[in-house]
Amino acid sequence: MAAQLINILERHACYEGEVCFFSHSSKELGLEAKVGVFLPSQALGGQKVPALYVLAGLTCNQETFLIKSNVIRFAAQHNIALIAPDTSPRGAHIDGEDVTYDIGTGAGYYVDAVASPWAQHYRMSSYLKEELPLFMERHFPLDAERCGILGHSMGGMGALSAALTMPAKWKSASAFAPIASPIDIDWGKKVTASYFGGDRSLWEAYDPCLLMEAGCKHPHTLLVDQGMADNFLEKLQPDMLEEVALKSGQKLQLRRHNGFDHSYWFIQSFIEDHLAHHAAILCH
Amino acid sequence: MAAQLINILERHACYEGEVCFFSHSSKELGLEAKVGVFLPSQALGGQKVPALYVLAGLTCNQETFLIKSNVIRFAAQHNIALIAPDTSPRGAHIDGEDVTYDIGTGAGYYVDAVASPWAQHYRMSSYLKEELPLFMERHFPLDAERCGILGHSMGGMGALSAALTMPAKWKSASAFAPIASPIDIDWGKKVTASYFGGDRSLWEAYDPCLLMEAGCKHPHTLLVDQGMADNFLEKLQPDMLEEVALKSGQKLQLRRHNGFDHSYWFIQSFIEDHLAHHAAILCH
Repeated sequence: MAAQLINILERHACYEGEVCFFSHSSKELGLEAKVGVFLPSQALGGQKVPALYVLAGLTCNQETFLIKSNVIRFAAQHNIALIAPDTSPRGAHIDGEDVTYDIGTGAGYYVDAVASPWAQHYRMSSYLKEELPLFMERHFPLDAERCGILGHSMGGMGALSAALTMPAKWKSASAFAPIASPIDIDWGKKVTASYFGGDRSLWEAYDPCLLMEAGCKHPHTLLVDQGMADNFLEKLQPDMLEEVALKSGQKLQLRRHNGFDHSYWFIQSFIEDHLAHHAAILCH
Repeated sequence: MAAQLINILERHACYEGEVCFFSHSSKELGLEAKVGVFLPSQALGGQKVPALYVLAGLTCNQETFLIKSNVIRFAAQHNIALIAPDTSPRGAHIDGEDVTYDIGTGAGYYVDAVASPWAQHYRMSSYLKEELPLFMERHFPLDAERCGILGHSMGGMGALSAALTMPAKWKSASAFAPIASPIDIDWGKKVTASYFGGDRSLWEAYDPCLLMEAGCKHPHTLLVDQGMADNFLEKLQPDMLEEVALKSGQKLQLRRHNGFDHSYWFIQSFIEDHLAHHAAILCH
């Protein structure tokens, strides 16, 4: 019981609140995991606040979304806490972990790997959906009944799949340029071949389009922004997302933005609307 | 005349405008120099807009201030262009250039070096104050009569000294946690020993406090924000800045912020006020 449960790495005053980076020993990942947090002023005063989990994309870490998206400005305005996990385990020392940008370090896809050598540490789904919220609610003044989730690209996929499978936990959801259906694109095939040991069917638990087709539904509108100059547009498949949502009765607001690409310059341009979307559901 | 004058590296839609990174061959630096630019919607429509130069601190580059400070949001609102130069020449291949964070690469201090081996390339003062504005005004729809300057730390020193020595060019100025008087602190001593070849008196052209004491004055109030939890507070000397400004009759609004440190988490918390300050002078 003498173990240090939370290891504060950095603390910074920001707006009327505070940004904090810490690490903790994750059981699911079997490693020390880093997390970025923004606590608005109400939380610093000890009051429980809603929590918005923000999931970054490939190559990013626990800092990227917080510093580049301008999300904190609006989280501070709405008195919403932000929780930014890393995008993969770090330091698992797996052969090939640091060879490509889209498998291994920085590329956890918010899924649980089942195949060796990944299965031991690459358990980002269980970490994100089970261990991390419990940990956060134990250590910070967060309202467990008012959680939202937002993500970009790989993280957009993670946010939508979390919301579709656990709508009671993730009461609001939105995404920037999400991977709508990874199963048949090259990123998804790489995950199938590595983390899933060739078992393509494991995507059924994470693929937003497959989840909607299987009957998963979120009671609130999913807000999705997509830049039409995004160089990953073919892989992201926003048209499929819209089509499947329509067929399955999932409320979806998909906004297409001419000229915008896949970058944080795009995200910061529309982040205000996303925080308003989450606040409308979480802050009451 | 067939030489490529401007080499576009990246372009991104951002808010109603565009972020662009380019490089150009700098005569002053004798090297290719990278620059970040934000052009608001009016400029994209061909209308001349005011230009705010943003100078980052040690270790940063032409992207840092633009992506981490949230400045673009407010530049877009005020229809002000942003110009973000790099913080030093890059690739001068000088012995010792990449050994410490505070001399060489990323540490140009916006001064002109006079001593070998730095004098050939480390001419950031002439680059920033002469070459770059002329280059920018030739290639972009910027109003040469409406320029402001803003900086952080080393860049705050650069912004204040530029404004004090050339108030007709830099009509508005502000800084976050500027180095108020480098001459007798360790950063300044290192610059004296390296770039200035031991000639301490060369600081008289760049040291904001010395400039004010020598009679340099800016007609508009200088806005300065300083975090009181800044771990460089002793080096930055905001009290001296305030005292010298008072004695010399320079209008200064120095705001002290309890709990805030030296980071971009601090800058983004107050950047809105800085853009309002510049807009009040430049946008009329």
